Amino acid sequence: MIKNFFEVHHECKNSLARTGVIHLPHGDVQTPVFMPVGTKGTVKAVDKDSLEEMGFEIILANTYHMYLRPGADIVQEGGGLHGFTKWNRNFLTDSGGFQVWSLSKLRKIDPNGITFRSDIDGSKHYFTPENVVQTQTKLNSDIQMQLDVCTGYDVKRKEAEKALQITTDWANRAVAEWKKQQENGYKGVLFPIVQGNFFDDLRKESAQFVSELDTPGLAIGGLSVGEPADVFAEKLQYTVQYITRSKPRYVMGIGTPEYIFEAVADGIDMFDCVQPTRIARHGMYFTRKGMVSIKQKRYEHDFTPVDPECNCKVCRTYSRAYLRHIFREQEILSSMLASYHNLYFLNDMIHQIRDAINQDRFEEFRREFLDRFHSGEV
Amino acid sequence: MIKNFFEVHHECKNSLARTGVIHLPHGDVQTPVFMPVGTKGTVKAVDKDSLEEMGFEIILANTYHMYLRPGADIVQEGGGLHGFTKWNRNFLTDSGGFQVWSLSKLRKIDPNGITFRSDIDGSKHYFTPENVVQTQTKLNSDIQMQLDVCTGYDVKRKEAEKALQITTDWANRAVAEWKKQQENGYKGVLFPIVQGNFFDDLRKESAQFVSELDTPGLAIGGLSVGEPADVFAEKLQYTVQYITRSKPRYVMGIGTPEYIFEAVADGIDMFDCVQPTRIARHGMYFTRKGMVSIKQKRYEHDFTPVDPECNCKVCRTYSRAYLRHIFREQEILSSMLASYHNLYFLNDMIHQIRDAINQDRFEEFRREFLDRFHSGEV
Repeated sequence: MIKNFFEVHHECKNSLARTGVIHLPHGDVQTPVFMPVGTKGTVKAVDKDSLEEMGFEIILANTYHMYLRPGADIVQEGGGLHGFTKWNRNFLTDSGGFQVWSLSKLRKIDPNGITFRSDIDGSKHYFTPENVVQTQTKLNSDIQMQLDVCTGYDVKRKEAEKALQITTDWANRAVAEWKKQQENGYKGVLFPIVQGNFFDDLRKESAQFVSELDTPGLAIGGLSVGEPADVFAEKLQYTVQYITRSKPRYVMGIGTPEYIFEAVADGIDMFDCVQPTRIARHGMYFTRKGMVSIKQKRYEHDFTPVDPECNCKVCRTYSRAYLRHIFREQEILSSMLASYHNLYFLNDMIHQIRDAINQDRFEEFRREFLDRFHSGEV
Repeated sequence: MIKNFFEVHHECKNSLARTGVIHLPHGDVQTPVFMPVGTKGTVKAVDKDSLEEMGFEIILANTYHMYLRPGADIVQEGGGLHGFTKWNRNFLTDSGGFQVWSLSKLRKIDPNGITFRSDIDGSKHYFTPENVVQTQTKLNSDIQMQLDVCTGYDVKRKEAEKALQITTDWANRAVAEWKKQQENGYKGVLFPIVQGNFFDDLRKESAQFVSELDTPGLAIGGLSVGEPADVFAEKLQYTVQYITRSKPRYVMGIGTPEYIFEAVADGIDMFDCVQPTRIARHGMYFTRKGMVSIKQKRYEHDFTPVDPECNCKVCRTYSRAYLRHIFREQEILSSMLASYHNLYFLNDMIHQIRDAINQDRFEEFRREFLDRFHSGEV
């Protein structure tokens, strides 16, 4: 185990929320942290300089995508993800287990691994817990994920049990392979993943097992796969009871204010989502008073900023009327500016969340923020 | 006439090429100048900060597009093109005559104006020399163009004659309307346009007429409409003989090194083209040794810059292998970086052209540059 990998700065007196810092090969990461997603080696429509300017310390890339194109060997030849993409702060990579489930045309699971077909060209591939660790090591990921078996919201207990059993076995195999890679000089860490679908006993069993593994952090999977928000909250709250508080905890695939506040309230330290940049490309802007769909006719003559309280360069510079115009004209600049703003907005929210935790007023801040966000006053 | 609107710095001793400066309401413009095109109020995939960073002093916007959407009144309400788009250096706007010819579903010309249908929604509109000046005044264009009648490479003499006759009449009407607008406080200038299709006597007549008009600059139209490069060069060389050297001369729609060198050699001071940013979106990069089509497999493992001699942030940062990857993945970043590079490249070339002119070695530099550009060594 890496010494002082994770340090808790402050635990909120009135919630499970906490602030801390994760020491990673490409710099420290303050937590709680929202990680923008750079699926194929770039956050969509946002260049690395802008991410640095906004102060992000870690972004995601997807192993499934980078493995298929351009291929892990090319990325390695280019100096890993950092050398290849020139984002020189930290990368977290997922294992590909989720994409094999959500994107691939075929997914055949056997006890040794997963056979799947590429969504690009239909070519056949085989992921094992070991080769996925090897691939992420080639990518030189700072935090890599174990290969897991994802299941949907609606699966039967039997399937969930089987998926968990395999995921558990694969966690052990991934850890063993990761330790080998560490001995060969690899500096990144591995996070195993809690599964168990929506069955409490399975989630508890998985949480306890994963907590005990010799890894410096862990992820909570199996949520945010189509279930209602209250089920997400209930299952997350249930799961975290059985997870050690000594390690950073990562919940995958959440990126709206509501979900982020819920996760932080449950003691989650890390989260990621494509949503802020995806909705940006559809002209949706976060604001402190709620979502703005910029295409609306009401903004035609509106020369105020999208969010008058925002200090980002988009809000300091452009009007709603102009942003509406470039969105309607399908200008690339629209995606660029909206993506920048949405990431800045979430990052700023996270900074405020950290301040609130440090001042033991997280739940108060959560109410204040979400009341305004849901006020409909925008 | 505006005092000292245009000053010639140096005339090359071995060619018609010259350097100078145009004094405009939103700052000085060094010439020769390449003007990036921001058709709908943004240069595609390049934000205004990047244009400033590269040192551009003037960009284009298209009257036809801005008139149809969002509408000149909204732009005026937003503070003209500068206030609306926040590009606070100069704007040149075309008159819309070219777009009515190339884009519109209908083009019915009568002596008073042009009836056309919007390419967006089929709605009917009417442009006159006067209302086009009024529209460009609402846009607060720094340099506006007269409404002209464009004709293709293949038209009969009769049609070319008629188009020129109307264009000539409209130049007088545009100048009269512009003077009215000036009296009302408008600071921008109007350039009339030489037409005459590919008929020497018509071009000569038009050139002489336009030179005598009381405007501080002028444009040479009717070229770069599909004719071979040698015809372009021949007709341009022929035309400039009959144009006063006291005013800045603008040739519309050219943006490749070959055409720019030809135009500069003929004493042209200004040019614009969508081509550098359009081909960028197709993965084409200018380099000193020729064009690079980044999608080629040969760049898969190529970790050198697109153009090792280029000092732009794209070439100082990213490898061909990465640029190929993001182009293949259709990432927006690919259009952003390629557009940035191509504009930087042309701007740098223009800076070198100015230096060469000032040192009386323009033709030498032209040969050197184009020899390398055509060397096929890339």
